[in-house]
Amino acid sequence: MDYQKQQERAAQFRQLHYDAPLLVLPNVWDAASARIIEQAGFPAIATTSSGVATVLGYSDGQHISRGMLIEALARITRVVDCPVTADIEAGYGDSIEEVLQTVKAVIETGVVGINIEDSLKQQENTLADITYQVELIQALRELANSLGVPFVINARVDVFLLAIGEPESRFEHAVQRANAYLQAGADCVYPIGFLERSTITDLVRAINGPINILGSSPDLPLPVLAQLGVARVSLASRLMLSILGHMRTIARELLEHGTYTSLHAEALSSTEFKALFS
Amino acid sequence: MDYQKQQERAAQFRQLHYDAPLLVLPNVWDAASARIIEQAGFPAIATTSSGVATVLGYSDGQHISRGMLIEALARITRVVDCPVTADIEAGYGDSIEEVLQTVKAVIETGVVGINIEDSLKQQENTLADITYQVELIQALRELANSLGVPFVINARVDVFLLAIGEPESRFEHAVQRANAYLQAGADCVYPIGFLERSTITDLVRAINGPINILGSSPDLPLPVLAQLGVARVSLASRLMLSILGHMRTIARELLEHGTYTSLHAEALSSTEFKALFS
Repeated sequence: MDYQKQQERAAQFRQLHYDAPLLVLPNVWDAASARIIEQAGFPAIATTSSGVATVLGYSDGQHISRGMLIEALARITRVVDCPVTADIEAGYGDSIEEVLQTVKAVIETGVVGINIEDSLKQQENTLADITYQVELIQALRELANSLGVPFVINARVDVFLLAIGEPESRFEHAVQRANAYLQAGADCVYPIGFLERSTITDLVRAINGPINILGSSPDLPLPVLAQLGVARVSLASRLMLSILGHMRTIARELLEHGTYTSLHAEALSSTEFKALFS
Repeated sequence: MDYQKQQERAAQFRQLHYDAPLLVLPNVWDAASARIIEQAGFPAIATTSSGVATVLGYSDGQHISRGMLIEALARITRVVDCPVTADIEAGYGDSIEEVLQTVKAVIETGVVGINIEDSLKQQENTLADITYQVELIQALRELANSLGVPFVINARVDVFLLAIGEPESRFEHAVQRANAYLQAGADCVYPIGFLERSTITDLVRAINGPINILGSSPDLPLPVLAQLGVARVSLASRLMLSILGHMRTIARELLEHGTYTSLHAEALSSTEFKALFS
């Protein structure tokens, strides 16, 4: 990608964390899903690691190779014009140096943002040492400066997701990590999990920067999340679960009734389909 | 794949063209869609070339490379147990020798059937010379014999699809090609297009072997197609059009209302999602 264009897209993507309306990212996994979301009018595209792995035939958790991840991202950046941010799990590496190699390759595909987790891939339900994670985020910020592409770092805080420690300790723990990651150079923090409204309110107050929340709770529609002061909402694998479920509905109707009602219900026309990559 | 297993799957797939119930193939494009269709209970998996191209970011018509096609097929055969048949368009080659090279590589992925078109890729709305196509199919049958994998050849007859010649000449033309292809070693012929019931009835009578019909016409549900004597029904890109349309519905609801009703309506549970590749 043109270098200046990539700089602009990174800046544009960062700004979306501050402007109204709320930044909403229905995470995608391939070129087709990316184009549908872009065409619908979303201003940026985020990937879901589990979706990317699933369409390649693997479960989530860095079971695909770094090369497969890079190729998947390149197929997406090739076809969309808006900023693309990549879910790179824990960075596909066992050291800061290895993670930086991953991120360099990711940025070379034209991506302008990353999600980086603080879960350890080597050990189940364990977080990286906070000192390590802070050093990693500092190194990522330095990499962004040295590359001249100010990519957006969204630092995951997996305290709630992995149910780390006693329930009453989690809020303080998450806030401590979130603020340390922001201090280290993250642009946004993502305390992933299904959180209650009051927890979200308290997190917004206690955290010194933009917050990403996992959307899809029926009692927390997007306007409510915006009102609570959330900067960014993503859907993790929810869009993928939906379309696989729709596929199953169609399959069952074909098997049980031999009819095409659900097949046609929401389908794109052939013209719309052809226009995806025209 | 184990050689003997592949032989058995090829034989099993061929037999499905003769046994009840009707062989129905809701064409898929990646590992996830393949697993959903297999899990739903379909006895075999077929790919759609346009779907495979679309998720990689390309339009249909051999715009992806042969290597990309082979990799996409290998990702599917890696995760399913049932027979897989591949839509290889016109064979990704400009000569019989080149098409045979493609098919050898396709069969090496574990695939046990192919769709081969008689449309010319080099020239729009033109069919291959019938003599060429017959020689190609004979060469494919010889290849199947020499490999010892009796893969199923589904020979497309694109007379209706491309509206070749005067309307009143198409039926005879299609029948002539279909019977020539069967004679040359095809296992099934596929006069693709949206055909009327009477045309299908006449084709079944005039063609000396199993017929594949493009399904999805609301007035021709699967039980009707079975009754007409059709052996195999495929859906081309219809399943892909449906799921992209479902994605668009979800995207629009998020943008316009900020709610998740269509997101949740048919979604897989996380447990079902994880079980895809367990």
